[in-house]
Parts: sequence; structure tokens; C-alpha cells
Amino acid sequence: MNTSIILSNAETAEWLKSRDNFLILTHRRPDGDTIGCASALAQGLREYGKTAYVLHNPETTPRYERFVEEFLAPDGYAPEHVILVDAASKELFPVNGGKHLEAISLSIDHHPSNTLYAEHTCLDGSYASCGEIIYEILLSLCGTISRKTAERLYVALTTDTGCFVYANTTANTLRVASILVEAGAPHRYLNRLLFRTKTRGRIMVEGMILSGLEFHHDGAVAISTITRSMMEEAGATEDDLDDISSIPGSIVGVLIGITIREMSGIRDCKVSLRTGTAVNSNDICARFGGGGHPMAAGFSREASVAEIKEMLLKVIGEYLPPNDA
Amino acid sequence: MNTSIILSNAETAEWLKSRDNFLILTHRRPDGDTIGCASALAQGLREYGKTAYVLHNPETTPRYERFVEEFLAPDGYAPEHVILVDAASKELFPVNGGKHLEAISLSIDHHPSNTLYAEHTCLDGSYASCGEIIYEILLSLCGTISRKTAERLYVALTTDTGCFVYANTTANTLRVASILVEAGAPHRYLNRLLFRTKTRGRIMVEGMILSGLEFHHDGAVAISTITRSMMEEAGATEDDLDDISSIPGSIVGVLIGITIREMSGIRDCKVSLRTGTAVNSNDICARFGGGGHPMAAGFSREASVAEIKEMLLKVIGEYLPPNDA
Repeated sequence: MNTSIILSNAETAEWLKSRDNFLILTHRRPDGDTIGCASALAQGLREYGKTAYVLHNPETTPRYERFVEEFLAPDGYAPEHVILVDAASKELFPVNGGKHLEAISLSIDHHPSNTLYAEHTCLDGSYASCGEIIYEILLSLCGTISRKTAERLYVALTTDTGCFVYANTTANTLRVASILVEAGAPHRYLNRLLFRTKTRGRIMVEGMILSGLEFHHDGAVAISTITRSMMEEAGATEDDLDDISSIPGSIVGVLIGITIREMSGIRDCKVSLRTGTAVNSNDICARFGGGGHPMAAGFSREASVAEIKEMLLKVIGEYLPPNDA
Repeated sequence: MNTSIILSNAETAEWLKSRDNFLILTHRRPDGDTIGCASALAQGLREYGKTAYVLHNPETTPRYERFVEEFLAPDGYAPEHVILVDAASKELFPVNGGKHLEAISLSIDHHPSNTLYAEHTCLDGSYASCGEIIYEILLSLCGTISRKTAERLYVALTTDTGCFVYANTTANTLRVASILVEAGAPHRYLNRLLFRTKTRGRIMVEGMILSGLEFHHDGAVAISTITRSMMEEAGATEDDLDDISSIPGSIVGVLIGITIREMSGIRDCKVSLRTGTAVNSNDICARFGGGGHPMAAGFSREASVAEIKEMLLKVIGEYLPPNDA
């Protein structure tokens, strides 16, 4: 059992006020929520007069680099306090965190599964995005939200909610988003960049996925596969695959949408599950050593696509609701 | 030049208070904004104690029927006042409006191109959806927004903004959406129904569109085609095509996204344009007798897909910004 001092959003603002020289870390395979939160927090702390940097995360994709680059810590920066945002557990620590990960002063997170690995934890599992927590902290800290902060928080909110369409979106998400747009977040530009634009590579991969979809259990389970050879044929990169795991779960009648993706080799696969309210993704993925949220979870496995499919199909029926449900 | 008495949102609420026995009409090829507005207005008027019905629109797709069915006018209903929502001009009058269209008492609309065809007009061209105007009118009228009204207004707001992702979305759209969710609009169910679920027919048509995309002008113009034979092969219906015209405009580098669709025959085509801020869709479509918004417009033509392509490609270059722009 880990012990961690739990802080409210307002207490976290006080904690930040009474300290200085921060280094902010993002999680492994950084998405818009962790990047948006880290850069917004750095910006807000600087506006308050503090010294704050973000640790460069080598896994950052070009899509998100522009938001964080001006905050990156210079070589040799010696922080007094290390903050990790949007990371539930040690498995999500950034690959280059090094000695900074030995003593994380503060974890700010919205995953109910947070393992309380940090000395202090500011956690609210009811929020759709970690960005909504950072918004409240910065509002307590600075009294106002600047255009630069608003832009980065908008990236955080929209990434985790698919631009307000996922089931985790709440009235609070929409309320905060409205305030961020009012504060100058360039939402037209950001929506186009993050949600409304697809590269030709992405379009090609999507075409292949749609033609290759497999259905099981009378259409209640849909499986899509993304192989390394598909990626090569389409000329697609990691950056082209954002949220691609949501495709199989979006088809009428599908209760469990599965995406199996070959990573560094054909025996290194990442599996992503998406479910509605009838099935718990987290439960299924926990069985395979993974986890996440009730409607979106995943796991990794050293196995081929075919082996993973077999493994999943053997047990997946147990998790489907009865037909007459 | 038409003359029409212009009413503010608050004046419209007063206008409604002092009258009774309303019939509300939706526009041709009804979408979620017109259906959501008509049914929310009927519900709100009933909550205030008025008699209000919606005229059945035979072009309503199954996706939207559930929101309006309880408000449909019985045979022989003789209204005193006819209201048309979300329709800019006579071309958008519903196909079965009949004698009701001869004297429209009130037009409530958000299209700046509204031709002032009605006796009274409540128009605000700055709103992303007509639903935001109806929201203000109902708030003036009833003082509060019921769960049933909120649900229908949420359908209106999200349909016209692609669930808050289109460039027309404003801070006001998000603010009102937040209030609607707070008031009980079942946004998870609605988002899944309207935006996150695709039929197998839709998935198949999308796959065909993606494989058949054509690029012109160094990738600045993308053309997708939806033929009757594609629809048959995919087993797709009209209801499966919602917002499908946005696909070609969503590709990186594309400034003009064109969708050409065969309608009742191979010489009856509907053309939809989608552009960013660099090109005005409405200008291009006006040249072919159509119109719409600056970033989304369309026209119809008795010509084959090939003829329309040729016709468009002959002039489309004129509308592209200079390469160094």
C-alpha cells in the first residue's frame, strides 16, 4: 500500500504557491491531455512568477510538440519539485524520467486507478480530462486564465473527450471549454488540427481497417488489425493513428471494439478495447495485465496478432451481457 | 425586396405568449437542427400552456423521427400561426407544406442569407445553430429548460456543429450545451446515436469513398463520389450518409472538398462543398445556382457525375488562393 498526502485542487494551488523550481513530467506515449496539462501548468506557474519547465518526452509526436516546445527544460536544470500529470501508475512513467521518477513530489491526475505513487496526490476521478483539474488549480493560483493557458487546456480537454463526443464528457467539460474559448483558445484552428484533418496516410490506413474488419458473437465483437506492413503501404506514422482504436467500437451493434496493433515487431502487440456502458473494458484488460477506464482500456503482449485474437476470443464471450439484456 | 417585421429573441417570446394554436414546420431534407428546434419549441410552448404541433415532414429520416413523433399534428389541425424553423429561403420549404407555406407567420433562423419570406423574422446569423436561438426564446418564455426540451435542443446544437467540432462552434454553443447537459439532456446516448455509431452500410460506403478519392490542383481539391450503385452494394440508406460530405475536406492540404452524389437518377446530382477559411464555398456554389454558408454550401444539377466534375474543375482553380498565400 502506497501512502500519499491527498490535496484538493485549492490545496494544490497553495502547495505550488509556497514552493518554486518545478519540473513537470508527461506520461509515456504522451497524448494531448498530458502535454496540454504539463504546458498549461508551466505557463500558469510562470505567470505567477515561478520557475517551471517541462521535461522533454522523446515519445512526443509532431502533432503535440508545438504546444510544449517553449517550456522544455534546458540541460542541467535542477528542479526542487517534480510533478507528473495525467499518469495513473509507474507503468506510465515517461521512458526518460530517470532519477526524477525516484521522488515525484506531486501527481495531478483524473484516473480513479491512480496508485498514489507520489508524495502528494491531487486526484479527481470524476473529471473527463486532467485538464479540468489543472484549470481549477490555475484559476486558484492566477485568478484568471490567459490565452496561452487556455489554448493548452483546450488541447487537454478535447483530446480526452474526442472533442466532447466521448461518454466521459460532462457538463463541467463543456462549461470549462466555453470559458477557454472565451479566454481566447483558438478552437477553430485546434479542432481542425486535432480532429478534422487527416493525412493521406491516415485516410489510407482507415480504408484498410474498414475493409479488414472482423465480426464475432453475432456482430457484438468487432476486431480491427493494424499491421506493420499496412503502415508501410499507407506511408503512415504513429502520429496518423490517434484515436484509431475507436473505429471498431463505433459500429452499430458492437459492444466490444478491439484494435490489435503490431508495434516494434510482429510479436509485440498493443491491444485497445472500447466498450459502451454494457461491458467493462478495464475488467477485460485487467485479466491480461492491462487496465484503463471502464469504456476504454488496453494491454500489451509479446504475441502475434493471430495468437492475441485466439486468446481474446476464447474469453470475450464471458463479458458480453445476456442476449435478452 | 421582401418586408418582414424583425423580432429579437425576447420579442419573439412575447409574440408567442400573446398568441396560440401554432403549427411548426421543418425544412426540406430535415436535419437535427430543424427537427430539434421544431420539437423543442412545441414542447416549450406546451409547457407554457399553448397548443402547438409540428407538421410531419415526409423526408424525416429514422434517426430523427424519435424526437418529433409525439408532437406531430393530427389530420385536420387548423393552426392560427405557422412557424418555420432553420430555413433560409423558399427553396427550403418542406415538400408537403402546402397552403401553410402561403402565410408563414414567423421564421426563426440562423442563416445570414434568410430572405425574410415570413411576416415576422427572428434571425441571428452569428449563432452556430438555430437551437441556440430557440434556447433563448424558451428561456424567456418558460424561465427554465425542461429535460425534454434540453434533449431536443442538444440534438439541434450538436447536429449543426458536428458535436462541437466544426468551425461555427462558439463559446456560446459550448455554454448552452453545458446548461442542456446539466438540465438532463442524455448527451451520452445522443452522442453515441448521432456521432459515434456507424452502420455497417455507412462503414462500407466510407471504405469505398476513401479508396475512390480524387485529388486535383496539387492536392488542394479533393473530390469524392457517391453513386447509386455504391449505395446498393453497401446496402446503405439516406440515413447512413449524414455529414459524409465532410470527408474530402478533412484531408491535410485540401482547401476545397467536393462530394458529388447521384440522387434519384444518374443525371440528378447533388454537390456539396466544404472549405476552410481560405475559400468561400457559398461563392462557388452561387455560381451554379446554389448557396449556403462560407465554409459549407451546395447545389443540385441535372447532369452526370462526370459532367459535374468537368464543370467544376474548369472554374475551381479561380477560387484557390495564390500558392504563396
